Amino acid sequence: MYLSGCSSDPVRENRRVAALVANFSRSPLQRNRLGESDAELVRIPGTDLLLAITTDAVVEEIEMGLYRNPYLIGWMTVVVSASDLAAVGADPLGILLNQTLPTGLAPGFEDDMQRGIRDACAACGLPPLGGDVNESDRLHVASTAVGTVPAGEAMMRSGTRPGDHLFLTGRAGLGNAFALQVLTRVPEVARVPYRPVARLQEGLLLRRFASACMDTSDGVVATLDELMRRSRFGLQLEPTSLRILHPEARKLARKSGIPTFAFLAGPHGEFELIFSIPPGRLSEFRTAADAAGISILELGVARQEPGLQLADQESGAWPDTAGIRNLSPREAEDLDLYLSHLVALADPAI
Amino acid sequence: MYLSGCSSDPVRENRRVAALVANFSRSPLQRNRLGESDAELVRIPGTDLLLAITTDAVVEEIEMGLYRNPYLIGWMTVVVSASDLAAVGADPLGILLNQTLPTGLAPGFEDDMQRGIRDACAACGLPPLGGDVNESDRLHVASTAVGTVPAGEAMMRSGTRPGDHLFLTGRAGLGNAFALQVLTRVPEVARVPYRPVARLQEGLLLRRFASACMDTSDGVVATLDELMRRSRFGLQLEPTSLRILHPEARKLARKSGIPTFAFLAGPHGEFELIFSIPPGRLSEFRTAADAAGISILELGVARQEPGLQLADQESGAWPDTAGIRNLSPREAEDLDLYLSHLVALADPAI
Repeated sequence: MYLSGCSSDPVRENRRVAALVANFSRSPLQRNRLGESDAELVRIPGTDLLLAITTDAVVEEIEMGLYRNPYLIGWMTVVVSASDLAAVGADPLGILLNQTLPTGLAPGFEDDMQRGIRDACAACGLPPLGGDVNESDRLHVASTAVGTVPAGEAMMRSGTRPGDHLFLTGRAGLGNAFALQVLTRVPEVARVPYRPVARLQEGLLLRRFASACMDTSDGVVATLDELMRRSRFGLQLEPTSLRILHPEARKLARKSGIPTFAFLAGPHGEFELIFSIPPGRLSEFRTAADAAGISILELGVARQEPGLQLADQESGAWPDTAGIRNLSPREAEDLDLYLSHLVALADPAI
Repeated sequence: MYLSGCSSDPVRENRRVAALVANFSRSPLQRNRLGESDAELVRIPGTDLLLAITTDAVVEEIEMGLYRNPYLIGWMTVVVSASDLAAVGADPLGILLNQTLPTGLAPGFEDDMQRGIRDACAACGLPPLGGDVNESDRLHVASTAVGTVPAGEAMMRSGTRPGDHLFLTGRAGLGNAFALQVLTRVPEVARVPYRPVARLQEGLLLRRFASACMDTSDGVVATLDELMRRSRFGLQLEPTSLRILHPEARKLARKSGIPTFAFLAGPHGEFELIFSIPPGRLSEFRTAADAAGISILELGVARQEPGLQLADQESGAWPDTAGIRNLSPREAEDLDLYLSHLVALADPAI
């Protein structure tokens, strides 16, 4: 059950990628196994550095109509890969952009998109190095972010041990709140302010302390599921863990009646980092985080007993986290059906 | 006239990219200006190395129906960026793949495509490091190749001086011969064997000698035009230069009546390298190339007088090389019209 990135992985996407690359050989210089870190880590010969490199395309979000605003599309094109650099603790070098642009775009669309790219690059401290521009009738954007990490300091998704404390770099649920607002008829509260930033500064601090790290690009539950699967541990989310919910998500939950857990379990994340700190490094880490002005939220303590447990539901439910990851909002007939499946998987005892 | 990569560049694609990135800031670590090298070159802090990194998507070739065979699509996904690493003389580290895959692909299509990727990676000595897989109803593929070059040894598109000798790493015109055969009703000769290899081994040799280098991904004429524009030199292609034409291109020219020049001027290249060697390094270079078993073809000697001159046409024509690059086979009503424009631009005196 707790194998990741192989053909018996219960997470469909992991199985899919493992099958696709089954016959590819790996570089002897590569330090991470398949899917073991948010960015690929490759030793640079003749140096004490690892190259950290990662690529991501923004496809489903555009095609589903989740990202329509060109500025947001440009912004997210940068953040999706910048955030993976943050999660391994890389010193950023820059970013490459792939833009396949339709000729018939609305006036200003292209300019707004480039402004989004430029502003996100500036916000992440990740200069655009180059890229490739193509024409098609279909918009398609992707980026590749690159940086370096001193060998031995790179963070992976594996490495958490029972007793380690799990943290989050910021409040969660904003990505799913945004998606709900855009894609459903959830009553219009104020517009959800979705413009996530890659936590590169945080990553540079964390690499000195963390035993594992991963970003919440696919939501908090998917991230916890992957971290738990990689290192075979479990976590009990205390009721107080709802402190981690972003106020906008909390507000939307109240207005819509959708359970707060759905905002952590949905697949549209907010690009915070989830990381674990060994107990012996805790106080030193807290001091360093305070000194750096980096705020953190505690999620709980890793335990031997595997799986995620929700202490705040009457049943003390164990959500089927792999099942939740295998749910696709795209494949569900509609979003209401998706949400009802999500809620059912959150508390299989019901 | 001889400005490249700025708003007054006569080459439409260069202007397009320059406008798109006009407001982007550049990294102080980046060693190349916009479009000055086939791959981006960035100093890696704390080392004597430059990072060489480049990304390319295969879009128009798939959408035009030029690449239909899934094995070839996979193969070319690797070669398009691997070749750019070769052109800067990089020691390869690896490649990342972006694959946006339709769910309804024909059985075996995905497997064949992955075999193409795997085989091209092996042929180029460029291990797959990772990537990103997405779903859409539209196939979209891209890659990012990465390597390193000792600072001071990276080759750029600029740097050729009058008196330098220009060479090609292999016979040219196969890319355009392949395109003609696939896209038009040119009489079926034997199937043109198009499976270009990135010249990474050659690049490692060339970086010790060459004053400039660029790959022929967009055809020989586009490459020469860019090299001449970057360093303000000219070149007279002697009649004997048709030695550089691939036998398959020569055969197709004979059967179809299409002028041989079109096989050098069309935009679908063969991923050879064009490079210049200063006269003082010539004999040392030839000895080293012989010792390495690398065959080269001479194109001519760079001269002060700008532009490309064809000594083998009666008029001693000066083709409008920027005009040729601005011709788009996609935008022409049909390929015959494109070819007639191409021939007219090849010899404006007619």
